[in-house]
Amino acid sequence: MRSWQRRLSAAGALVAAVLALGAAGPRSPAPLQFSPAGRFKVVLFADLHYGENAWTDWGPAQDAASDHVMAAVLDAENPDFVVYLGDLVTANNVPVANASLYWDRAVSAARRRGVPWSTVFGNHDDMPFEWPPEWFSPAGVPPVHCPPAAPGCSFRGTPRVELMADELSRGGGLSRSSVGPRELWPGVSNYVLQVLSRERPRDPALLMYFLDSGGGSYPEVISCAQAAWFHSQARFLNPDGSIPELVFWHIPSTAYVKVAPKATTEISKPCVGSLNEEDVAPQAAEWGMMDALAHRPSVKAIFVGHNHGLDWCCPYEKLWLCFARHTGHGGYGDWPRGARIVDISEEEEHFSVNSWIRMENGSTHSHVTLTSARFS
Amino acid sequence: MRSWQRRLSAAGALVAAVLALGAAGPRSPAPLQFSPAGRFKVVLFADLHYGENAWTDWGPAQDAASDHVMAAVLDAENPDFVVYLGDLVTANNVPVANASLYWDRAVSAARRRGVPWSTVFGNHDDMPFEWPPEWFSPAGVPPVHCPPAAPGCSFRGTPRVELMADELSRGGGLSRSSVGPRELWPGVSNYVLQVLSRERPRDPALLMYFLDSGGGSYPEVISCAQAAWFHSQARFLNPDGSIPELVFWHIPSTAYVKVAPKATTEISKPCVGSLNEEDVAPQAAEWGMMDALAHRPSVKAIFVGHNHGLDWCCPYEKLWLCFARHTGHGGYGDWPRGARIVDISEEEEHFSVNSWIRMENGSTHSHVTLTSARFS
Repeated sequence: MRSWQRRLSAAGALVAAVLALGAAGPRSPAPLQFSPAGRFKVVLFADLHYGENAWTDWGPAQDAASDHVMAAVLDAENPDFVVYLGDLVTANNVPVANASLYWDRAVSAARRRGVPWSTVFGNHDDMPFEWPPEWFSPAGVPPVHCPPAAPGCSFRGTPRVELMADELSRGGGLSRSSVGPRELWPGVSNYVLQVLSRERPRDPALLMYFLDSGGGSYPEVISCAQAAWFHSQARFLNPDGSIPELVFWHIPSTAYVKVAPKATTEISKPCVGSLNEEDVAPQAAEWGMMDALAHRPSVKAIFVGHNHGLDWCCPYEKLWLCFARHTGHGGYGDWPRGARIVDISEEEEHFSVNSWIRMENGSTHSHVTLTSARFS
Repeated sequence: MRSWQRRLSAAGALVAAVLALGAAGPRSPAPLQFSPAGRFKVVLFADLHYGENAWTDWGPAQDAASDHVMAAVLDAENPDFVVYLGDLVTANNVPVANASLYWDRAVSAARRRGVPWSTVFGNHDDMPFEWPPEWFSPAGVPPVHCPPAAPGCSFRGTPRVELMADELSRGGGLSRSSVGPRELWPGVSNYVLQVLSRERPRDPALLMYFLDSGGGSYPEVISCAQAAWFHSQARFLNPDGSIPELVFWHIPSTAYVKVAPKATTEISKPCVGSLNEEDVAPQAAEWGMMDALAHRPSVKAIFVGHNHGLDWCCPYEKLWLCFARHTGHGGYGDWPRGARIVDISEEEEHFSVNSWIRMENGSTHSHVTLTSARFS
């Protein structure tokens, strides 16, 4: 019995509570597991920015274009899992109470194919709704639907918890998202998912941590409380560091600034990528999360979105800091759209994480091996 | 029977609905009425900005100082009515769910003396709450009370409707505020109060219109719908314009910019005032409200707050545009605090509106007669 199993047996109630973090939704979803070929392939959809300018032609047109990007990537890659890496919607451009509908459209790409997914919040996801100036003109405020729970229909946007609750209720058991521990609020998308081993189906062979990096209705930051939560989760689920770990959130931490390739230069080794077109726009502060990660050799990589003009991976301490690729036709920037793929292999005790970028036109580039190591 | 009474008799249900606008609260309040001496004196408290920096010494100290200003003015003037002219609180500096408590502290100055009052919203009243950076540090988020109706305690500030509902529930029958017609939302503080004649106790001798000039959770504007609402109210309640009318809201309309005394010069006639220390910060657009008012000779004056460094009255068309006086020790500016007084006389068919500014130290200045006319 491995140490992880021993701890599971020893701490019944607590374990149930911890596992529940990965079992959100109206019914208990099937566990995530490496394929018979020992693979687990994850597609990252970042910065879709659905719902911009619904009252014009170009808003709905770019949403349709975003649908197309995701369809092309999913058709080409046939992944086991999708991570929606924040800014699914541009809530501050959505007129009243429609953020959940646009959010649902974003995740429907995975749902329609029966692919399980999870989401983290970006800074645009729970911003206040748009107030079109026309609503104060003779045109007036159109009839709007006020959710029953919203006192006075304050038009302040859809709170994170409500967005997530809607996702879970419509997810058909495929959403693996969670509102996370209440003590970490206002950060909501904080949870751990485990991917079970092909060879030892009761043991996790990969842990995926999802964190809410803030923004929108509160500052862009990962709190000290979140860092402490990560610490305790990791210590409990993976005390000896034998299980490799990947981490996902939306806004790059300040550590990304340190490792970024120099602007206007080609991306050169050890970094790998194709876009380095802007400065890293980091979180407002660093409250210990990076320190917690950098000191765990089992943590292999962090994946973020947020910067549409960056798609590189660079090493930092013993892990990799990666940007995803701007997937949506919403949001700033005209760089061709695509998605980062993370392909994890569990073969005969040999664990590797390979990554590349799949473009809407079918091409791939920026292949990189993020880790290749034996675990005993 | 005056025309107003005829229309009252003719339109039972509608009248009841209209009168209800001025009869908000858990129980029907006593009607407002001119005194036996034919006077109705209103004190305007503007820009109190309660609740700033509660975690320091200076925040609570300045709130106590604001208490003192109001007490001094009320003791000196003994008014019949108090108008709280917006920015009662600085909600964007209040940490979580306390805006109603600070709002209540503001109106308690009138309530404790048994003086009826009403409130309009300023741009700072329903801003999102403060997120102190310390909450993301090891100090963490303190235990906070989430209102039962708030899904996930989103910390987005207290919505206008909730602030107003709290005021009415705690008002002890003295609050004459109202959440206004729902079709005017997001603007909430839209309602009419009538002050009954001393001589003909069933007839109003003064109408006071209160409007929400926006800001905070939506743009700083009076909508076309509000202007149309004013129009229909005025036409119904005062079809022949025989009843004088006063108007109150928070943010100056763009018309204030037109009549403002030139900066850095002394305030000279026809304007009257003592402070002209900054530019008018007007609403974002003009959607017909000023046009509606300027074409009604019965409208005598508009009173606004918002600009702490302005306290003048200037004529515009056939009415007066007046600033109140910065009352609170919260908010920007170090000009001595005070309050504008509006003293209305109904004497033998002779109606007059006089105004002056009462300072915290007991002095008065800037006396001006805003109207003096006979109505038949």
